[in-house]
Amino acid sequence: MYVVIVYDVNVEYVNKVRIFLKQYLNWVQNSVFEGELTEAEYNKVMNHLEKIIDKANGHVLCYISRDKRYLKIDEIGIRKAEINNFL
Amino acid sequence: MYVVIVYDVNVEYVNKVRIFLKQYLNWVQNSVFEGELTEAEYNKVMNHLEKIIDKANGHVLCYISRDKRYLKIDEIGIRKAEINNFL
Repeated sequence: MYVVIVYDVNVEYVNKVRIFLKQYLNWVQNSVFEGELTEAEYNKVMNHLEKIIDKANGHVLCYISRDKRYLKIDEIGIRKAEINNFL
Repeated sequence: MYVVIVYDVNVEYVNKVRIFLKQYLNWVQNSVFEGELTEAEYNKVMNHLEKIIDKANGHVLCYISRDKRYLKIDEIGIRKAEINNFL
């Protein structure tokens, strides 16, 4: 399955979330990761995110397509290079 | 078609993008809008975004599903109320 994760978490959680998601998905924009996951991996990611973010103040949205082919992706502008210093 | 738009634009463009997207889509998270658009509306949105953002520094990603049914949406945490003061 193809997964897009966008998050809005307090600044003290940002690095933790980035470092974690980078193990499973590709960074595509500030606070946006996407990539192919198995269902088991997806459950693992979600369970871990539940633990590491402050659910009262943070918010994570996941868009899941059964297959990447069913998701058209358009973009405007230039992708920024990933800020590796943060990771 | 169901559209999710995430953007990362310089602070001076943020309000312009928000105010514009709010006319067509629902705000769901900081820098994330989603909703149902016709193809004509989608083209209008993309053409206008091309004009109003600084493409050298801003980046917009659009995920398009032919139908919302093909897109599973999960979330963790609480959606923040939209900051209407910004709009």
